[in-house]
Amino acid sequence: MGREPLKLGMVGGGEGAFIGDVHRIAARIDDRFELVSGVFSSTPEKSRRSGRELGISEDRLYEDFEVMAKAEAARSDGIDVVAIVTPNHMHFGPAKTFLEAGIHVICDKPMTLNWHEAEALAVVAQTSGKQFMLTHNYTGYPMIREAKRLIADGDLGHLRIVNVEYIQGWLAAGNVGKQAAWRIDPKQAGIGGCLGDIGTHAFQLAEWVTKCRALELSANLQTFGDGRTLDDNADIRLRFENDVVGNIWASQVAIGQENGLRLRVIGTEGAIEWHQEQPNHLWLDKLDQPRQRLTRGGAGFRDQARIPAGHPEGFLEGFASLYRDFADVIQMGNQANDLPGIEDGLRGLRFIEQSVTSNQNMNAWLAL
Amino acid sequence: MGREPLKLGMVGGGEGAFIGDVHRIAARIDDRFELVSGVFSSTPEKSRRSGRELGISEDRLYEDFEVMAKAEAARSDGIDVVAIVTPNHMHFGPAKTFLEAGIHVICDKPMTLNWHEAEALAVVAQTSGKQFMLTHNYTGYPMIREAKRLIADGDLGHLRIVNVEYIQGWLAAGNVGKQAAWRIDPKQAGIGGCLGDIGTHAFQLAEWVTKCRALELSANLQTFGDGRTLDDNADIRLRFENDVVGNIWASQVAIGQENGLRLRVIGTEGAIEWHQEQPNHLWLDKLDQPRQRLTRGGAGFRDQARIPAGHPEGFLEGFASLYRDFADVIQMGNQANDLPGIEDGLRGLRFIEQSVTSNQNMNAWLAL
Amino acid sequence: MGREPLKLGMVGGGEGAFIGDVHRIAARIDDRFELVSGVFSSTPEKSRRSGRELGISEDRLYEDFEVMAKAEAARSDGIDVVAIVTPNHMHFGPAKTFLEAGIHVICDKPMTLNWHEAEALAVVAQTSGKQFMLTHNYTGYPMIREAKRLIADGDLGHLRIVNVEYIQGWLAAGNVGKQAAWRIDPKQAGIGGCLGDIGTHAFQLAEWVTKCRALELSANLQTFGDGRTLDDNADIRLRFENDVVGNIWASQVAIGQENGLRLRVIGTEGAIEWHQEQPNHLWLDKLDQPRQRLTRGGAGFRDQARIPAGHPEGFLEGFASLYRDFADVIQMGNQANDLPGIEDGLRGLRFIEQSVTSNQNMNAWLAL
Amino acid sequence: MGREPLKLGMVGGGEGAFIGDVHRIAARIDDRFELVSGVFSSTPEKSRRSGRELGISEDRLYEDFEVMAKAEAARSDGIDVVAIVTPNHMHFGPAKTFLEAGIHVICDKPMTLNWHEAEALAVVAQTSGKQFMLTHNYTGYPMIREAKRLIADGDLGHLRIVNVEYIQGWLAAGNVGKQAAWRIDPKQAGIGGCLGDIGTHAFQLAEWVTKCRALELSANLQTFGDGRTLDDNADIRLRFENDVVGNIWASQVAIGQENGLRLRVIGTEGAIEWHQEQPNHLWLDKLDQPRQRLTRGGAGFRDQARIPAGHPEGFLEGFASLYRDFADVIQMGNQANDLPGIEDGLRGLRFIEQSVTSNQNMNAWLAL
Repeated sequence: MGREPLKLGMVGGGEGAFIGDVHRIAARIDDRFELVSGVFSSTPEKSRRSGRELGISEDRLYEDFEVMAKAEAARSDGIDVVAIVTPNHMHFGPAKTFLEAGIHVICDKPMTLNWHEAEALAVVAQTSGKQFMLTHNYTGYPMIREAKRLIADGDLGHLRIVNVEYIQGWLAAGNVGKQAAWRIDPKQAGIGGCLGDIGTHAFQLAEWVTKCRALELSANLQTFGDGRTLDDNADIRLRFENDVVGNIWASQVAIGQENGLRLRVIGTEGAIEWHQEQPNHLWLDKLDQPRQRLTRGGAGFRDQARIPAGHPEGFLEGFASLYRDFADVIQMGNQANDLPGIEDGLRGLRFIEQSVTSNQNMNAWLAL
Repeated sequence: MGREPLKLGMVGGGEGAFIGDVHRIAARIDDRFELVSGVFSSTPEKSRRSGRELGISEDRLYEDFEVMAKAEAARSDGIDVVAIVTPNHMHFGPAKTFLEAGIHVICDKPMTLNWHEAEALAVVAQTSGKQFMLTHNYTGYPMIREAKRLIADGDLGHLRIVNVEYIQGWLAAGNVGKQAAWRIDPKQAGIGGCLGDIGTHAFQLAEWVTKCRALELSANLQTFGDGRTLDDNADIRLRFENDVVGNIWASQVAIGQENGLRLRVIGTEGAIEWHQEQPNHLWLDKLDQPRQRLTRGGAGFRDQARIPAGHPEGFLEGFASLYRDFADVIQMGNQANDLPGIEDGLRGLRFIEQSVTSNQNMNAWLAL
Repeated sequence: MGREPLKLGMVGGGEGAFIGDVHRIAARIDDRFELVSGVFSSTPEKSRRSGRELGISEDRLYEDFEVMAKAEAARSDGIDVVAIVTPNHMHFGPAKTFLEAGIHVICDKPMTLNWHEAEALAVVAQTSGKQFMLTHNYTGYPMIREAKRLIADGDLGHLRIVNVEYIQGWLAAGNVGKQAAWRIDPKQAGIGGCLGDIGTHAFQLAEWVTKCRALELSANLQTFGDGRTLDDNADIRLRFENDVVGNIWASQVAIGQENGLRLRVIGTEGAIEWHQEQPNHLWLDKLDQPRQRLTRGGAGFRDQARIPAGHPEGFLEGFASLYRDFADVIQMGNQANDLPGIEDGLRGLRFIEQSVTSNQNMNAWLAL
Repeated sequence: MGREPLKLGMVGGGEGAFIGDVHRIAARIDDRFELVSGVFSSTPEKSRRSGRELGISEDRLYEDFEVMAKAEAARSDGIDVVAIVTPNHMHFGPAKTFLEAGIHVICDKPMTLNWHEAEALAVVAQTSGKQFMLTHNYTGYPMIREAKRLIADGDLGHLRIVNVEYIQGWLAAGNVGKQAAWRIDPKQAGIGGCLGDIGTHAFQLAEWVTKCRALELSANLQTFGDGRTLDDNADIRLRFENDVVGNIWASQVAIGQENGLRLRVIGTEGAIEWHQEQPNHLWLDKLDQPRQRLTRGGAGFRDQARIPAGHPEGFLEGFASLYRDFADVIQMGNQANDLPGIEDGLRGLRFIEQSVTSNQNMNAWLAL
């Protein structure tokens, strides 16, 4: 607060795009960003129409991200940060371009279309000296951060088991609508379907919350939907450091499931359980004690809460916390909340590629 | 979208005020308002400090709401709307002043300190021709709006029973902090404690969702907390039109409850149940059918959802919907969502005053 | 164990009677009773057919409870106990007769058809020196007993509020079937409909768990169902000793509710919450601590559990615990579990009669 | 009803044995069995003491199961059925002996100590012409039977995914007590720890509910507890007929979990979900419809319910349904409820042995 909002540009997120709105709302919630520029669609007319709807002034509405990067970098009031909210195949180009233009980057996951791009981007990012945030937004949920603290503080003892489910049903029946179209197209999505769209969230969350690195995986993938080539159901085994074992179940054919992300971590002294659809609660089980329900803002809570306990915060607030914390990183160099970045992006691409390879090799165990 | 944001001023909501932040975030979420002016505290120094933190320019930071109203009304770029987020005793003066200055008003509930002020404000509002919204924010929750539609469509048949619980525990033990201080002080809160703070929400929700008017009440109030004079637990019986019966239980001494607002409506053909702490679900029971769980954005959902089913929206989004819809009212004359206003304010004060009188008269039934 | 089963007779509970089966199963679960005699219906042929189905020998199948009492009392192997599971108007006669014949009595609630009979039975019971148990079966649930202990131990501090809901939907639409027929007939049910059938359970539970006596009530009753004269929805206010306040909501028109008995008790230091439909859990809220979920057989549990935690016990096991404990009372004089009896029966009739009178007098407060 | 109870003997289940009590209560609930004989412990004195406690007459209390089988087979009033409730290594001998003596057998799972014994027992059973029931008791739960019917009726369309979790926490910390002792001892338990104790339940349930045969498995087992040689955590992948995929997670180190058996089945048209700890509910998700909660005894329910909806039945009632249905099989040749038997036992042993082998071979896929 009290500081100037950062100037924000956007690539993607025009009419009909769910995730563009999410980024814009998230950026506004804590008043740390002002959207001033963008290329909102690969179709110039559509980009322009979307930009006008968003109140962007004409001179900062571009038809091409390279033009945008150059022009904005040249302005004294140019953007500080750009948010890249395009399909996966359009992450690498813009991210590289803006970093090289000296502009911080917020980018949707998976970081790039493939591992090759991911490695290249990592080099660019390091050279650029600019900040890069990957929107693994579930790390912004207060109770997930609380879970991470509990684990770090040893409340669970030595970890033994990590179990993440991320199951949805929206691709059970068909490939309907704009949201589905690019996600099932290997040219735009890469080699992972469900793996890349939600599996990477599950994998990142597992490593992020536990601070425990996965060493190997064995993947068993399915493609149930007619007319698909990419996986829509994924069953991943993980071996972590310190003999921790893990499982990920990601699915987009689980009828009745809306956004069923669920995390369970079990140690020698305790266990936690969290459901994304009830994000304000965290179940804590300590050995030989009754189950406790921790709440955002409730007794013992240590993270920041915008509003008191019992007044639910949701998906947008979690997303907004990444934006707020990224503003802190840029403006104050504050790294307190361990925001997801390049390293998480590399891990995610590695996860996708090794999962696909493992699946092609009778679920062989492969290094991560 | 595509239209200019409305210019917003604020009275109250300085440092440490929970509800000021809520209003500001709610106003930002859909980008329909821009906060440009305010008196943020009755202490000039604190008001100024808060205003600077919020990025308000110095010339639009005032020390007095009357000065503010006059100055803003005189500017060509003056505020369109003011949000009044002060304790109850400071609602009437600002509301009257801004309406008379030709500025739309958003005001926290209860509308005024007492019935007398409420009646006077109703006259002012009508004369002014300006819009007035009372922030009964639970009417902004998508599933509450869905409930209202189901009832209006006859899905529940003829209504029989309305049951609203609004129970919290934060005043169970003491009168701690700024939030408690004014709420238990009759000079600032009026004659209702828990009644005014949350009971009015429950009452408004009961009438709003059912479109059924309460005709009489019988109230049984308690004051459990040491050093309090106002009620902190309220048990209200209601008689509605068409022989519908109702109950409200409002409490602030219910240990373990955070913001336990729960609505149940039962008719001859069906029933609904909603919990504020899981706002994205609505339970629908039809006669002789299995219980159904409706979700925001899920099958059959008819309201607007910012984000897909399974991505929880919460308290702030509900609040934001009131702001968004109020912007529509002001800019487009759209009254679609039946926003709470002067009439709800009058009903609320009537509810408080008759409850207190009933309680003083052996819980006598009194007209509403 | 290791002792002889008690010899059990039954009055009522023939073909098609839900509660007769419940009693028989409850009596068998812990192997403390052997059913050897009965009058199972007021229709001799039906009684005989039911008795044969149950494997009762012909010479102990009676057509009349008075004959049965006399004959069994005269046998050297006569019944020790009789279970009376008839509609309400047929409680008093059999109960009096068996007690006077020196046979212990298990009787369904409400104890008698009216207060007059209840007083008379109390005298008979005392004179007889025999044991009398009223099947307020919810007192047999382990977590209800745990709740009682927590309250007695002071875990909740001084009590403030008791709230009991007992809501069902099975009479929402019509008066269908044998179960409904007698419950809505004043000649068989008495002056309370829903009040007597389930309201008395709620009232007894409130007093039993808290060990706090209700001093006054104010009742507001409704009759929603066509063709009914008795209440099918009841809203009762209670004033207990020590300024504790209470509410009971009993309903049989709450569509979607199966057997929604829910108990909440709030004190100065903590609160508990229990739902009959998830009887193995008890929620404990201590001031400024996270909510805890206690479980039957889990950490801290002090009551008897037949099977380990996580293996749910239900309605029949709770009922069986009354039978088991009553066998202990009879065989060992053990009164540990505070079984419901004559005094509870008197309280229940008083509750019904004062509720009806209060409702007829504008919900006046009446002594209990 | 109306028919003579079957005469029941028992091997095992003496003092301190949890499962012995369960069998006895289950046998009593529907009054279809009478316990008249047994060897209750391998320690003669303890067997005798337990038998007396249970009211078994002295002449039918044996010290050895072979003596018992011979003696009972020779009596005109000898037992019809024997229940074998010993540790796993003591299943084969008694089962074989009683079958050969012409006595029906009820046996705990896993059926035998190893595959070799299982095959041998299958031959004996077939030759004997006697009935054999394996107590996979979760098949007795009404909502599990309802799930099986829904799947058989095509409500879920073509199946795609079966997911079973069976997680407990009671072996998280140590190897405490009689219940633990034999379960972690390979001599008594066989080569499966958690696999045999609860994994076989999960596997049997998956096949039983879906009527879909698992063709291959890949197993990943862990042993977390100090001083153990057998698995206490198991992660199994399954391939079923018709390209259905499956997972089982069985664990006894999942702190906070009591008896967390959870079943999910997903098809092309719908999905079901069931939790053992809330056994009276079954969640049904149909494509593009709101989630429905089916209840035992509620709308659409087709199985038998002892008591009305909302009056919870639990673990013992589910167990009792197996006993009741087995009595029907013996007395009336009724096979309606597809009771688990020899084939399930063979499958279970195969499951254990192939899981252990797979785990020893880098989780290789092995035929089932």
